[in-house]
Amino acid sequence: MINIAIMGFGVVGSGVAETITLNAKAFAERTEGLELNVKYILDLREFPGHPLADRVVHEITPILEDEAVTIVVETMGGTNPAYDFSKKALLAGKSVVTSNKEVVAKHGAELQAIAREKGVSYLFEASVGGGIPIIRPMWQCLASNQIKSVTGILNGTCNYILTKMEKDKEDFETALKQSQELGYAERNPAADVEGMDTCRKISILSSLAYGKTVSTEDVICEGITKITYDDLVFARENGYSIKLLGRASKEDDGKVYVITAPFLVPKENALSTVNDVYNGISVVGNVVGDVLFCGRGAGSLPTASAVMADVLDVVRDCKKSIGWKDEKADFLGDMTCFATSNYIRTKAEENTIKTVFGAVNVSNRNGWNVFITEQIKNCELLTKLEKLSAEWVRIRVMQ
Amino acid sequence: MINIAIMGFGVVGSGVAETITLNAKAFAERTEGLELNVKYILDLREFPGHPLADRVVHEITPILEDEAVTIVVETMGGTNPAYDFSKKALLAGKSVVTSNKEVVAKHGAELQAIAREKGVSYLFEASVGGGIPIIRPMWQCLASNQIKSVTGILNGTCNYILTKMEKDKEDFETALKQSQELGYAERNPAADVEGMDTCRKISILSSLAYGKTVSTEDVICEGITKITYDDLVFARENGYSIKLLGRASKEDDGKVYVITAPFLVPKENALSTVNDVYNGISVVGNVVGDVLFCGRGAGSLPTASAVMADVLDVVRDCKKSIGWKDEKADFLGDMTCFATSNYIRTKAEENTIKTVFGAVNVSNRNGWNVFITEQIKNCELLTKLEKLSAEWVRIRVMQ
Repeated sequence: MINIAIMGFGVVGSGVAETITLNAKAFAERTEGLELNVKYILDLREFPGHPLADRVVHEITPILEDEAVTIVVETMGGTNPAYDFSKKALLAGKSVVTSNKEVVAKHGAELQAIAREKGVSYLFEASVGGGIPIIRPMWQCLASNQIKSVTGILNGTCNYILTKMEKDKEDFETALKQSQELGYAERNPAADVEGMDTCRKISILSSLAYGKTVSTEDVICEGITKITYDDLVFARENGYSIKLLGRASKEDDGKVYVITAPFLVPKENALSTVNDVYNGISVVGNVVGDVLFCGRGAGSLPTASAVMADVLDVVRDCKKSIGWKDEKADFLGDMTCFATSNYIRTKAEENTIKTVFGAVNVSNRNGWNVFITEQIKNCELLTKLEKLSAEWVRIRVMQ
Repeated sequence: MINIAIMGFGVVGSGVAETITLNAKAFAERTEGLELNVKYILDLREFPGHPLADRVVHEITPILEDEAVTIVVETMGGTNPAYDFSKKALLAGKSVVTSNKEVVAKHGAELQAIAREKGVSYLFEASVGGGIPIIRPMWQCLASNQIKSVTGILNGTCNYILTKMEKDKEDFETALKQSQELGYAERNPAADVEGMDTCRKISILSSLAYGKTVSTEDVICEGITKITYDDLVFARENGYSIKLLGRASKEDDGKVYVITAPFLVPKENALSTVNDVYNGISVVGNVVGDVLFCGRGAGSLPTASAVMADVLDVVRDCKKSIGWKDEKADFLGDMTCFATSNYIRTKAEENTIKTVFGAVNVSNRNGWNVFITEQIKNCELLTKLEKLSAEWVRIRVMQ
């Protein structure tokens, strides 16, 4: 019997417990009959009436001291005490499986190193892309590739809001409010709509792809709060969808450029067809070409599915040191000067626009002038936009 | 140093050698510095001038007898002697990594069992979906799921032909001929366009998903040779794409239904957007929901990428027994009576059609009457079609 402790019995943690019950048989078939037992649930709350209510503990000590517990599932969220508890569990010789992207983005390399040292595993498939297998395929199946780029729609809430805005002809605020009422957006949606959640996830994926810690502070991070229904219409009419992307790409100068921002994605790009709460991640390798992974990027059971995949790996004693070096990335390019084409919406007049940007094709929508720039370095673009002396919104165009 | 033998130095085998050279550094990083060495290439031909020409042997004996060789890559294609050689290599205590779907579909379970017995691996990621990671994600990441269905566009040649027919307004024969000239279709295209290649791949995926050997003989297999440009236009105008699918689904009666056939795929289904030589595989699990994997399903380097992922697994001594029981599937439902909606194109007159099928919506295209039936069991449909006493073509509609 494999004894598991679940730390944090919220949406994902309870999904893990449910999955263990639901698919006990399928699981046993893949582990040569080993049975999984949820021995502890660490949570500040009680869960009266829940079938596992008697497993609830309020402190980590009994878990650390119980040698029968070999796997700790960390589904607490937030940096602390999740980081502290995970470290203690690893130091106590237990494998840790996590869905916590904050901890992985910030302390992943350190925890991976401790796991290696202790001969256990620190696995984090569930930290990116919910139920979509992405960490392991990137690491394992694409191992013989040099990764040219990783581009993902990594936040289901933002994708849902953008899809809903276009479908229901709504502005951002209305779509957000309705998404909150439906439970698709949190009451405090900042981490989602300001891009921080996506930023953490692309930090993890780019650290994995390029081998050293890319910290969120090094990633330009823009959200979707300024996008209007008119922007989406302009995009559609010109052959694009607007998607919040996390993107890391290795360019010709050998540097890796990482960004989180909304992009106009060409309709021919498969990511433009990933809608609603779905996530999509495109990986381009020098051998495999482009590979796309899509699925539900969040939710109790999908995320639990990814957690259980990691648990299964630990159970089968498949020693893994998935991860990256505990060193700061030294391969990052200066994103502030990265060149892209851009969609601009501004209150500036057409004459002013043409004086600053030359012969661009300007059209008017509800009092705003909109146009698409040529490829231009970000720093140069900002200088030009300042010259407009008027309100503006910019969305990059994906190549 | 890890010594590898490559059996079969064709498109895939030479791609494997090229990948080992191209990404030696990335590979070493993931194997703690171990170097890969192609010690033997087994092929009937010589390759004068090739950098690895001195590794070529024409018999398997030196490979079997050389204890330094721990991994044999089988990229020969065809059942024999590939099956025989793979068996001998496994019995000699070497791990075998293969891209050979014929051998895996037919003898996979037996070879997996020998590998388990010998404490080595028999891995076959490259046998389905080219470079797309699918075997391992299905096995590992979706391990905690009960698989409801696996549906795939598994043959890049057919998908290319269907895409080209629609784009260039061509009939099947013209598109096939041009695909052959471009090297996208083989000179003898039967295995592709008659569906057998897809059939082998869905056999492998359904064996893996449901745990016992689903043999190709048990799978209904229809190809794309009867599809016309008009069929594609009708499909598009009614919100569908036509795709050759391999599909296995577990239905409410607990039985698994497996088929290879062209389907009208609704535009809302992501598979409908997978075009050209791309493959797409949708997996629905009871926990994860639906997950989609897309990428290049064939080609030298993409397939080599999948082979190398398996090689890496062996190198890292990650003992794997991916596979299924060496027993005949006892869970298959009777596909001949499976109910679907259907697109029918027939020379029968509208009156006859309405007498037989009731109030269906018939339209005429270039001398053919076309309509879509209600959900109807296949056996009942065939009885009705016979009553038309006229030529007909049927394409199933995917739900």
